[in-house]
Amino acid sequence: MKITVLTLFKDMYEGFLNTSIIHRILEKKLAEIEIIDIRDYSFDKHRHVDDTPYGGGAGMLMKVDVVHRAIKENSSVKTHVILTSPKANPLKQEDLIRLSKEEEILIICGHYEGIDYRIEKYIDEKVSIGDYILTGGELPSMVLIDGILRLLDEGISSDSLKEESFNNGLLEYPQYTRPVEYDGEKVPDVLQNGNHAEIRKYNLKMALKETMRYRPDLLENRELSKEEKNLLEEIGNEL
Amino acid sequence: MKITVLTLFKDMYEGFLNTSIIHRILEKKLAEIEIIDIRDYSFDKHRHVDDTPYGGGAGMLMKVDVVHRAIKENSSVKTHVILTSPKANPLKQEDLIRLSKEEEILIICGHYEGIDYRIEKYIDEKVSIGDYILTGGELPSMVLIDGILRLLDEGISSDSLKEESFNNGLLEYPQYTRPVEYDGEKVPDVLQNGNHAEIRKYNLKMALKETMRYRPDLLENRELSKEEKNLLEEIGNEL
Repeated sequence: MKITVLTLFKDMYEGFLNTSIIHRILEKKLAEIEIIDIRDYSFDKHRHVDDTPYGGGAGMLMKVDVVHRAIKENSSVKTHVILTSPKANPLKQEDLIRLSKEEEILIICGHYEGIDYRIEKYIDEKVSIGDYILTGGELPSMVLIDGILRLLDEGISSDSLKEESFNNGLLEYPQYTRPVEYDGEKVPDVLQNGNHAEIRKYNLKMALKETMRYRPDLLENRELSKEEKNLLEEIGNEL
Repeated sequence: MKITVLTLFKDMYEGFLNTSIIHRILEKKLAEIEIIDIRDYSFDKHRHVDDTPYGGGAGMLMKVDVVHRAIKENSSVKTHVILTSPKANPLKQEDLIRLSKEEEILIICGHYEGIDYRIEKYIDEKVSIGDYILTGGELPSMVLIDGILRLLDEGISSDSLKEESFNNGLLEYPQYTRPVEYDGEKVPDVLQNGNHAEIRKYNLKMALKETMRYRPDLLENRELSKEEKNLLEEIGNEL
């Protein structure tokens, strides 16, 4: 997969691309990332990329002609063009799975007050990472890259993918490592006894309990197995 | 405000802290950011921070004793301790506004499969930036820092804060800058005529239209003014 990012803040990606998991995936050639400075596509020698909005208003807007030129020169017919924008439903894990199947992705990072609305003609999808306001689209683009690349990575074992939060629609059950007792809190006995059937059932119960506590909305849209229903009843009786 | 981050990937923050708006805010001394390597608080010379989970399972867990030590040595009674975690309702702008009023924040970035559950005893709040899975808590911590610092920044004028997405519960209206015509698409006449009352009304209508189109859920929880109701009716008639 090839991911290209159009940004005004190229330097911001250095630490991100050179660290840890992302770097390892790039070294494995599972994906190629290119960070492009939008200013390289401006039409004047002062490298202007923004201008004041028609009709007044605070701030500056990125120019449609400059951004469109940057898109054209960095995409092909196969490219899925994404604009980071609050005008979209917040990103979900399903979106990352879908995007991880693309061959080429181009992400445009908005900044200042926004981009000339006419840019929408040239994009395939707007992506919001959540209902909050950031200084620009750079962190959202990194969230997309991180979330997509880890799905491509064979280094994340499928066992590990299976167990993690959201993959089966429940939050992760509590996990513990050594020491067995810390500051008065002990690891539950069942996790220490090596009975795998009991451990599986206990962990499922705890996953249901965590989900009830922190994200009851996730249970509403889920079809429960008979075992899960029984465990939820058990949890209810214990309260 | 002081924000401290506990991470295993300190290098990842370099580009982020040195770029643009964040850097400007730090130069203004509106906030101080410190990035701390959790490994500095391990108890052995090999700097171990993780161990296998009790009861089996893939991956490694961060150790409660190490992380707790890092928390203790980097916090005071005033510190609001946050753990990045999927076990929370997705972050909203209101949360950033609330957090921007804290004096001291400490953010713990999870990694590997997670952290020993007993860490929850030492944290004040779990924050999730959305329902998707990332390789670690570093990007979520940057999202928090970016979203909070921009609220502290006088450099973002209050005019600008007022107009942006979500602040009045609607998506931003479309904005345009030069050229007045590009690739067959023209800036709407009303935005060019200088009639501020008309422009205001047009922009409100377009904001409602964008919100209806992309985030109808935002309209459901909103009390509409008489003008907004009339404009929504107008939009309905035009469809």
